[in-house]
Amino acid sequence: MDAIRTRRSIRKYKPAPVPESVLKEVLNAARLAPSADNAQPWKMVVVRDEETKVRLAVASNGQKFIAQASLVLVVCGLPDEAFQTVGGYMSSHVIDATIALDHLTLAAHAQGLGTCWIASFKEDKVREILGIPEDVRVIALTPLGYPDETPEKSPRKNLEELVIFERYQ
Amino acid sequence: MDAIRTRRSIRKYKPAPVPESVLKEVLNAARLAPSADNAQPWKMVVVRDEETKVRLAVASNGQKFIAQASLVLVVCGLPDEAFQTVGGYMSSHVIDATIALDHLTLAAHAQGLGTCWIASFKEDKVREILGIPEDVRVIALTPLGYPDETPEKSPRKNLEELVIFERYQ
Repeated sequence: MDAIRTRRSIRKYKPAPVPESVLKEVLNAARLAPSADNAQPWKMVVVRDEETKVRLAVASNGQKFIAQASLVLVVCGLPDEAFQTVGGYMSSHVIDATIALDHLTLAAHAQGLGTCWIASFKEDKVREILGIPEDVRVIALTPLGYPDETPEKSPRKNLEELVIFERYQ
Repeated sequence: MDAIRTRRSIRKYKPAPVPESVLKEVLNAARLAPSADNAQPWKMVVVRDEETKVRLAVASNGQKFIAQASLVLVVCGLPDEAFQTVGGYMSSHVIDATIALDHLTLAAHAQGLGTCWIASFKEDKVREILGIPEDVRVIALTPLGYPDETPEKSPRKNLEELVIFERYQ
């Protein structure tokens, strides 16, 4: 709960590298995430190469801070390995990849690392940069590194706007 | 990290009710979740009514244990309020609703409560039971209550199968 309360989206990073053991710990948090039918239909690409990070920042519609972090994670979903019919209508790969990354962001924060969910990116460009095949979808990116800012809490809706009791309407 | 390591999917529940203050705490964990453009395009329906819980269990392809828990949460995504172009190709409502529920499952575990992501359900039936409008999507359900089992850890892939360095291929 403390990690949830104090986590922030970090958009400014120190150049300090993430130690191997710490990286492994936060990747392990993703690994432990639940998934539909326990299919675990996702992969994460860990990018440390400076030029590739810059290209990913450009592919993320120019969000330059992404390349500042020690590394960038690119989270992919594998529709072909996923549970096909969440709710009878969609593949689970988006949900499963998201749970894994959410676990990782909280574990990273507990380790003093910052992350920032990136939704604004061009999938085809990211695909091209990393050699991601056609049947694999890019769900999200995040920088991962040591924060160089301590942002204020961003506003949230009240519980009354988010929670409904017994019937939607 | 401890919550991530020890959380399990719980499929057997005690009838004990979830105190109001504890419910509020775990819903607050969902409320604090990040979302694309901070749009928070989701709502959770909290169901305590016994008959409605049983109907939701039936709509979840007969997973009876769902109705055993003190309450059932139905997590909805609001495409019309979401960031429209994650990766240039999808609405963020699935990701945003999933992050919120993942936060909640970890906070619930920290409070001694059990949850179980339900992916196998019929959206149209759930919609009918709760009066969920056409423009709102049902992303997941979970029972929420006190566990009456302590399941073993379920197997996970090795990190080597999930993590790739520098390039996908």
